[in-house]
Amino acid sequence: MNTNALPHSLPPLVLSAEVRDALAQGRAVVALESTIITHGMPWPQNVETARQVENLVRAEGGVPATIAIIAGKIHVGLDDSTLEWLGTARDVMKVSRADLAYALSAARHGSTTVAATMICAQLAGIRVFATGGIGGVHRGVEETMDISADLTEFARTPVAVVCAGAKALLDLPRTLEFLETQGVPVVGYETNDFPAFWSRSSGLPVPLRADSAKDIASMIAMRTTLGLEGGVVVANPVPQVSEIPRAEMETFITQAVEEARRDGITGKAVTPYLLSRMLELTAGRSLETNIALVLNNARLATHIALALSGKA
Amino acid sequence: MNTNALPHSLPPLVLSAEVRDALAQGRAVVALESTIITHGMPWPQNVETARQVENLVRAEGGVPATIAIIAGKIHVGLDDSTLEWLGTARDVMKVSRADLAYALSAARHGSTTVAATMICAQLAGIRVFATGGIGGVHRGVEETMDISADLTEFARTPVAVVCAGAKALLDLPRTLEFLETQGVPVVGYETNDFPAFWSRSSGLPVPLRADSAKDIASMIAMRTTLGLEGGVVVANPVPQVSEIPRAEMETFITQAVEEARRDGITGKAVTPYLLSRMLELTAGRSLETNIALVLNNARLATHIALALSGKA
Amino acid sequence: MNTNALPHSLPPLVLSAEVRDALAQGRAVVALESTIITHGMPWPQNVETARQVENLVRAEGGVPATIAIIAGKIHVGLDDSTLEWLGTARDVMKVSRADLAYALSAARHGSTTVAATMICAQLAGIRVFATGGIGGVHRGVEETMDISADLTEFARTPVAVVCAGAKALLDLPRTLEFLETQGVPVVGYETNDFPAFWSRSSGLPVPLRADSAKDIASMIAMRTTLGLEGGVVVANPVPQVSEIPRAEMETFITQAVEEARRDGITGKAVTPYLLSRMLELTAGRSLETNIALVLNNARLATHIALALSGKA
Ligand SMILES: [Mn+2]
Ligand SMILES: [Mn+2]
Ligand SMILES: [Mn+2]
Repeated sequence: MNTNALPHSLPPLVLSAEVRDALAQGRAVVALESTIITHGMPWPQNVETARQVENLVRAEGGVPATIAIIAGKIHVGLDDSTLEWLGTARDVMKVSRADLAYALSAARHGSTTVAATMICAQLAGIRVFATGGIGGVHRGVEETMDISADLTEFARTPVAVVCAGAKALLDLPRTLEFLETQGVPVVGYETNDFPAFWSRSSGLPVPLRADSAKDIASMIAMRTTLGLEGGVVVANPVPQVSEIPRAEMETFITQAVEEARRDGITGKAVTPYLLSRMLELTAGRSLETNIALVLNNARLATHIALALSGKA
Repeated sequence: MNTNALPHSLPPLVLSAEVRDALAQGRAVVALESTIITHGMPWPQNVETARQVENLVRAEGGVPATIAIIAGKIHVGLDDSTLEWLGTARDVMKVSRADLAYALSAARHGSTTVAATMICAQLAGIRVFATGGIGGVHRGVEETMDISADLTEFARTPVAVVCAGAKALLDLPRTLEFLETQGVPVVGYETNDFPAFWSRSSGLPVPLRADSAKDIASMIAMRTTLGLEGGVVVANPVPQVSEIPRAEMETFITQAVEEARRDGITGKAVTPYLLSRMLELTAGRSLETNIALVLNNARLATHIALALSGKA
Repeated sequence: MNTNALPHSLPPLVLSAEVRDALAQGRAVVALESTIITHGMPWPQNVETARQVENLVRAEGGVPATIAIIAGKIHVGLDDSTLEWLGTARDVMKVSRADLAYALSAARHGSTTVAATMICAQLAGIRVFATGGIGGVHRGVEETMDISADLTEFARTPVAVVCAGAKALLDLPRTLEFLETQGVPVVGYETNDFPAFWSRSSGLPVPLRADSAKDIASMIAMRTTLGLEGGVVVANPVPQVSEIPRAEMETFITQAVEEARRDGITGKAVTPYLLSRMLELTAGRSLETNIALVLNNARLATHIALALSGKA
């Protein structure tokens, strides 16, 4: 059977020298996403945090690989000026699986969501990725059917994602059910509870528990050995000193959700609205907690990557 | 590890001489489905439209490949007498992904849905397919969980499907959400709005937009380069001269849905019932619009296939 | 592109001599799950039934391969003392797709659900598997989003599962809709009705029908030829002499569901609660029926495996 295949070509990947050398040497590389820079945090905290995260990965013995789309190329490892530019850039697409090929073929700029970062990490040969929180099932899903493409990506792409659970604005019980239906492992690190982003516990049990980065690395390696498709959610609670307890957060979330309804906020505008209300209602503590949990996740991700590379 | 594998055999594909030669020469081939012939339109408009569509593809410089199951073989490219026979045949299965192997091994006749046509096109090496509208999330899904297998096929099989959106009888907002969750690109052609089959706009934004067949072909080629699984929904609004405006259509749909409820129509009987009421309520205009949009989609599909084959 | 890949290693599979020889000779091997032993039936009926099933497969000309995780290895074919031990063991994980790598890398014991047994069967090169009933969409899914991972496994792993449908405690209409959306074939054996585990009919039509093991084997072989991902649900009604009619069962189920609500039973505790109430309400008949249907499924599975191996 003949096909209309175009001449085979390589994915448009641009690796920084640091990342390229690290991968060639089999060192511990940790992928980092860029939506947190363009959409997740205000300037200048977004750029400062991105730099802090990269330095923390290096300090722990790994190599950071922040991923973004620049002029139609997938950049893996960003230089400082690009990071700075991203922190205030306009006309940057938020790129998920569905948008990736479009952003590349149309030569656009884009920041990558959890789903798209998983795909790009996999293309570059990176197996561990640190972020803040993954997407999930949205509150009100029974009306909207709004479920993040991050969740189906975990059923497909073999990358382990270290996170503080899913954002507590989401419907966490249903997010866990959806992941279970998709056959996705959710492993709590040193916890029996699924974390709730700003809070150490959602009150829901986490399906699996591991107490060392090495155990998590063994599980990831076993998935490769078995040839299982898909990734792993590593749920890492924010350090106690930085958490906002769940009872407190739930009050704010309930209030913000009601305000959003009252103000007629719908669709894609809901999450940014709620996040900015969280910032106000917590008098800025939600952002501090967010920064703390991202750093905490980068540390664990580096330890897992070191264990996978046989360097820990 | 030994397996009980049967002797390897080739898929039971029968290509017409026209299609076989075109594929061998790397020419622009456009797949066409056959459920529209057996279940989508009344006789004789079904056969007349099928011929018109094939001739339009040829006139635009492509080669049409209408796909159907005949006596347990996948026919790709039907001769005129087979098309004529299909147009009035009884005992023709409506074949989706779940039914395909059964229809073949039981030596049945079948017309192929969007999902099954995507699979057969992919087996034959065809990358572009024109249809009327894709399946979607059904109205009342919160009760029934009735969601077309077409939508999950887009997450799996790398074929681009040019359509006028999903039939407006469906729940279009939830259809878009489901496709987003599955990571499926939905690209509007020369529009910012997701079309509603008989109407140029559903009132919903389309996630991506392209303004030329070449841009769509570049995106498809990039998906191949990235090794992304799954297909692309190319949403092509019916020409303005042929559309039935949304406000008008919605009145008819609401009325027909109420009548179906009153008459106790349920399950698989609902869609045919609603389509036939649409025909009556619009005094036949819904069928004229349907024919116009299929032709319009075949034209765009041919242009995309030409761009992919490097001939445009 | 370099990857951090670990040295390639083989899955930790331990085949019994009987299974290893049978696979090497291309004989008819039938996979059997172990969750029915650890969680599905009380002792000693669980062990007795497991033995009866194995002997029935042998008597019909096949080789049984009961699958369980023992100390971090996938055992395919259990010796008698292991079966006995499993029948009363504590600290045995219930292992589905999400748990499999974890159970292995953490050197745990585990019984395998339908989903995990499909994966392990596929790793061992076994294509047919007999069980009691598959998981499905849970009643109350509109509140919980609780859907068994068995259903998505059928969209992925090419193993045919002979069952008496899904447990009638589940939401059977929505279970069939979910399977349709996932493109999974559901074939009734000598029936037009989808069975309801203890009852021969759920009152719902089964999408496809076959009247011989050979026809089912042909369909499975055709799926391999087409390269279709995913498995097949073979729905085999319990013999009439052993069934509990649906009207009778529905009364018990409705009563038990109400009692569970009254007693505040939620989450993972619901199914075991309902099953144990079924046992009481039917004065033990539900267990007798369960044993009869498992034996009936093992017989049909053996005949299908024989047909696939060319020995029938
Ligand atoms: Mn969404
Ligand atoms: Mn349906
Ligand atoms: Mn469940």
